[in-house]
Amino acid sequence: MIERIAILGTGLLGTSLGLALRASGFKGSIVGWNRSVEGAREALALGAIDLVASDAIALAHASDVVVLCVPIYSTLDYMEQLATALTTHHLVTDVGSTKGQITAAAGRLFNTPDRAAFLPGHPMAGKERGGASLGEASLFRGAAWLFTDDPSWQRSARGAELAADWRQWVAAMGSKAIDLDARRHDELVAWVSHLPQFTATALSALLEDQVGDAPELKHVGGRALREMTRLGASPFSMWRDIAHTNTAAIEAALQALEQRLAYIRENLRTPALREEFEQANAFRRD
Amino acid sequence: MIERIAILGTGLLGTSLGLALRASGFKGSIVGWNRSVEGAREALALGAIDLVASDAIALAHASDVVVLCVPIYSTLDYMEQLATALTTHHLVTDVGSTKGQITAAAGRLFNTPDRAAFLPGHPMAGKERGGASLGEASLFRGAAWLFTDDPSWQRSARGAELAADWRQWVAAMGSKAIDLDARRHDELVAWVSHLPQFTATALSALLEDQVGDAPELKHVGGRALREMTRLGASPFSMWRDIAHTNTAAIEAALQALEQRLAYIRENLRTPALREEFEQANAFRRD
Repeated sequence: MIERIAILGTGLLGTSLGLALRASGFKGSIVGWNRSVEGAREALALGAIDLVASDAIALAHASDVVVLCVPIYSTLDYMEQLATALTTHHLVTDVGSTKGQITAAAGRLFNTPDRAAFLPGHPMAGKERGGASLGEASLFRGAAWLFTDDPSWQRSARGAELAADWRQWVAAMGSKAIDLDARRHDELVAWVSHLPQFTATALSALLEDQVGDAPELKHVGGRALREMTRLGASPFSMWRDIAHTNTAAIEAALQALEQRLAYIRENLRTPALREEFEQANAFRRD
Repeated sequence: MIERIAILGTGLLGTSLGLALRASGFKGSIVGWNRSVEGAREALALGAIDLVASDAIALAHASDVVVLCVPIYSTLDYMEQLATALTTHHLVTDVGSTKGQITAAAGRLFNTPDRAAFLPGHPMAGKERGGASLGEASLFRGAAWLFTDDPSWQRSARGAELAADWRQWVAAMGSKAIDLDARRHDELVAWVSHLPQFTATALSALLEDQVGDAPELKHVGGRALREMTRLGASPFSMWRDIAHTNTAAIEAALQALEQRLAYIRENLRTPALREEFEQANAFRRD
């Protein structure tokens, strides 16, 4: 039923999305727009999109589904512009990592019977580096795809159909949809996604101070250290908006980890250390 | 020149060592001893050892090189027993993760012209779970193998030859030898090995509290969370002796990370966050 998809932002996620839709059998058109045209041309060369558009809003208007694959504040900006440009025949969805502000804007600007529909989404997939060139058709396979739909929204019939169809494409790309409310979403990802990122950033930054001038010693840590610092390569540009739009939940998670590390530090020689290891073991037991 | 190797402790490291020596072309005998005979039989079945010995000290005496692959306090116990049982025709070496106490004992009990030689070693390789069944011939390939030899030691001619030959086998197994003094070793591994472990333990234990009762949410974090908590599966039994024998250096590293996390927490919305990401990026740049 979805025939024309617009991908606004052909970075890692937008490019992977185009590739994944094609690999899952999507036969309609996929047109891309990107702030830098080079990124869009790269996505085109990879086969993630069929065409590069020069005007994001005109492209959105000519599509059934618009997928916003840009940072969170840009997503919020485009939501304002698209709300007036689109009609009851459009669905907008996104891939933003925090959902509080985006879901609130979706309720304010979309999702009434006379407006376009907006389905807030968040695929739990990514890499520590961005860019079209790293795009992969399999990026979403096995990943959770979180939706923060609000049951009180009253979408147009066409908007509701497009949203249901988009969910089917998410399943076709190999993702497992999980519905939760936006507040619970932001708390959850603070623990399972943002805390691991900021921990890897802190650990990597600290180790750069300690052993950064001795490259041969960096590598001594082997696989364990490589894994624990891989996310240290994540650029600030990917995380700035997340830090700004989920600050309180991230602060709480970071403080809890600081306290846990202090507790371990104070108990390196007491039986409490065994309990910490057992508690950690439980998390890894399935 | 080394013809008979004794592996005392056929867990993950001892078993991998036997397999790696064979894969690297070692043609002599490899005999194993293990506290539980089942573990030794598993190593035998895998081809890591040729024979299971019932008496560790008698086995050591009948060998050229004795490799202690047991926890640190057990290594220290065996060093006491072997010092009186062995002669100038023996080399003892080990794989212990902290080297301060072991290197001090090596100077006190070995490494004079009329005693057996002891070469303190530490391959930077392992897994988050132990046991012979996880042994792998390739475990040491590409890994650093740290030695904390003391230049003031005066080994017997035969002991010095065996130590040089053991270093050649370490290279043959694909490891890169790095020599450093025991104090510097223990500081270094506190940063690049022990801190990552205790961080993963703290993060895993904390997340078990937060989402442990909702298994579907554990998996939401995907690859990033899996990597950041993989070491959370490490058993206390592998880490107790490390925590006890490198306490001060681990305390310092943990406290530094707590401070770094607090700094990030206090700067989630300030330009200092960009600097933390850039510093972390630098660590991952080669």
